[in-house]
Amino acid sequence: MHVGTGAAADVPVVALDAMGGDRAPAEIVAGALAAVEQLDVEVLLAGPPEVLARHLPGGEPPPRIRLLPASEVVAMDDEPAGAIRAKKDSSLVRCAEAVRDGHAQAMVGAGNTGATMAAALLRMGRIRGVQRPAIAVPVPVPGGDRRSLLLDVGATVDPEPEWLVQWALLGREFAKIRLGIAEPTVGLLSNGEEAGKGDDLRKRASALLGETKGFVGNVEGRDLLRATTDVVVTDGFTGNVALKTLEGALLGLSGLVFSVVDEPGAEWAASAEALKLRLLGAAAPLLPDNTGGAILLGVNGICVISHGSSSAAAIVNAVRVARESVTAGTVARLAEAVAGAG
Amino acid sequence: MHVGTGAAADVPVVALDAMGGDRAPAEIVAGALAAVEQLDVEVLLAGPPEVLARHLPGGEPPPRIRLLPASEVVAMDDEPAGAIRAKKDSSLVRCAEAVRDGHAQAMVGAGNTGATMAAALLRMGRIRGVQRPAIAVPVPVPGGDRRSLLLDVGATVDPEPEWLVQWALLGREFAKIRLGIAEPTVGLLSNGEEAGKGDDLRKRASALLGETKGFVGNVEGRDLLRATTDVVVTDGFTGNVALKTLEGALLGLSGLVFSVVDEPGAEWAASAEALKLRLLGAAAPLLPDNTGGAILLGVNGICVISHGSSSAAAIVNAVRVARESVTAGTVARLAEAVAGAG
Repeated sequence: MHVGTGAAADVPVVALDAMGGDRAPAEIVAGALAAVEQLDVEVLLAGPPEVLARHLPGGEPPPRIRLLPASEVVAMDDEPAGAIRAKKDSSLVRCAEAVRDGHAQAMVGAGNTGATMAAALLRMGRIRGVQRPAIAVPVPVPGGDRRSLLLDVGATVDPEPEWLVQWALLGREFAKIRLGIAEPTVGLLSNGEEAGKGDDLRKRASALLGETKGFVGNVEGRDLLRATTDVVVTDGFTGNVALKTLEGALLGLSGLVFSVVDEPGAEWAASAEALKLRLLGAAAPLLPDNTGGAILLGVNGICVISHGSSSAAAIVNAVRVARESVTAGTVARLAEAVAGAG
Repeated sequence: MHVGTGAAADVPVVALDAMGGDRAPAEIVAGALAAVEQLDVEVLLAGPPEVLARHLPGGEPPPRIRLLPASEVVAMDDEPAGAIRAKKDSSLVRCAEAVRDGHAQAMVGAGNTGATMAAALLRMGRIRGVQRPAIAVPVPVPGGDRRSLLLDVGATVDPEPEWLVQWALLGREFAKIRLGIAEPTVGLLSNGEEAGKGDDLRKRASALLGETKGFVGNVEGRDLLRATTDVVVTDGFTGNVALKTLEGALLGLSGLVFSVVDEPGAEWAASAEALKLRLLGAAAPLLPDNTGGAILLGVNGICVISHGSSSAAAIVNAVRVARESVTAGTVARLAEAVAGAG
């Protein structure tokens, strides 16, 4: 990582795709404005300048925000690889190129996840020795302050068993940085705790993972919200289903609880508003807006993927994670973790 | 199905493994006693007679319960196929044989799921044309009265795409019976709603499912608790992870809600007990004890699998499902559904 001589050069620069996400560009630009207020960071804001200007106070970027002009936009439903090939002047591709070319040390996107991944992979390349990247996401324990890191949640749906071993190494190293755990434990998501459980992929991966530091064996779906291990490794298909199942459960069950709290004429009716506020506060750490987003591990740069419905607050959290990943020297540490095991 | 000439012969007979489950035999026997009180059913209670006698009033089975003597017990952690081979006089194997030999029309077990499946498969055989069985479980919508039927949740972890098509047919026919839906819709659990999404298995299955009646395309993990389709088809590995993720989320989030309700000195403290009772009532339909258990579809008989920690109430619900599956002529209807599509 380049470290300049002046103070300004030491401030991490994060390239932010202003056009990605269901609420782009308004919420993304608002997030950028808040991020440079709250964090010691510079933001390269990528998008069509005339569009961005409409969302900036006075039509001009404030200090520590610079515009990264891009004439095209990758849509949420664009086919990922095709979009990256076709839209070379898109805000998303320009963000990945800014990291590749050293104008930024990290990128953040809340748009098309597949395209964000493809842009990062194609423009930054992979860390030496890594076969395929994986998306890692922190899963918070309800009511607790622990979290586990689940990967892959969607980058690579048909992995070889060896790739799961690399993801265990990457996830373990990143858990040290992101979760602040000295020696993270690693579990393999399976359909039973016993060593023999699993489909063909799990059985082959389990045999290989035996030699991975911190590996403790199989974990089950019900362990995901309990953080029985610090890292949970799985293929991108299963991880995506599990993560979205958790999201759906949070939504469905909170709806049920609120309908009970709101029952007309209930004994607790006078306290219903206070109770709802308190419940929302208790559930806040579980909401995607507050988890800081996912990270693409295995590419040769920092790429933070915020969820599609990101608010300005979600963007601030994602920029914070990107910034902290830069200052921790994450890419070099991940490269070392993979090289050391090879 | 044999139908006798007297009224007694028309009462469905359910073989119940009294020795299977974390709370066996006490809760299972209690469940049998309650079942024959509440339902128009006979129970063949399988286990060592001297053990069962200790849990029966006066040491004798009451009317409509008969003992099915068995000297061995399959343990929760026994290797499934090996246990069935080795323990030929186990209560579990005797239940499956009772169905095979026509002494019962259905079996219910709350023990080792793999062994229950193996016993049913090896003793009853498969429905003609079915390649592999699948375990189907109803997933309730929180606060709603709808449910979806998820399969497979653990019988077959490495299916061929063609088997998923058979499970769609079996699941759809069983949803008509169990959920009372005239024309059930079917979704394929995947990592995105778009048709192109999925791993290799999903892409191949999706192409084949196009011709299956009721198939509407991909669904995601977050759809599981919303019943966006009546039937959700997946492989046994992913289904098991998703189901246990749901269970873990229910447990983790209810713990969080109760800790808020129980906060000392809270504005709602005086109503905390009433509120908790009401919340428990609202969540009751979601608890495994109350869903009636899973069913093994594709074997040539009715095999209901109740969860490992089944209470007496769970056993009554499982016996009810077994009984209703018998009276609906489920096996014949499933056979017809598969044959009709072949």
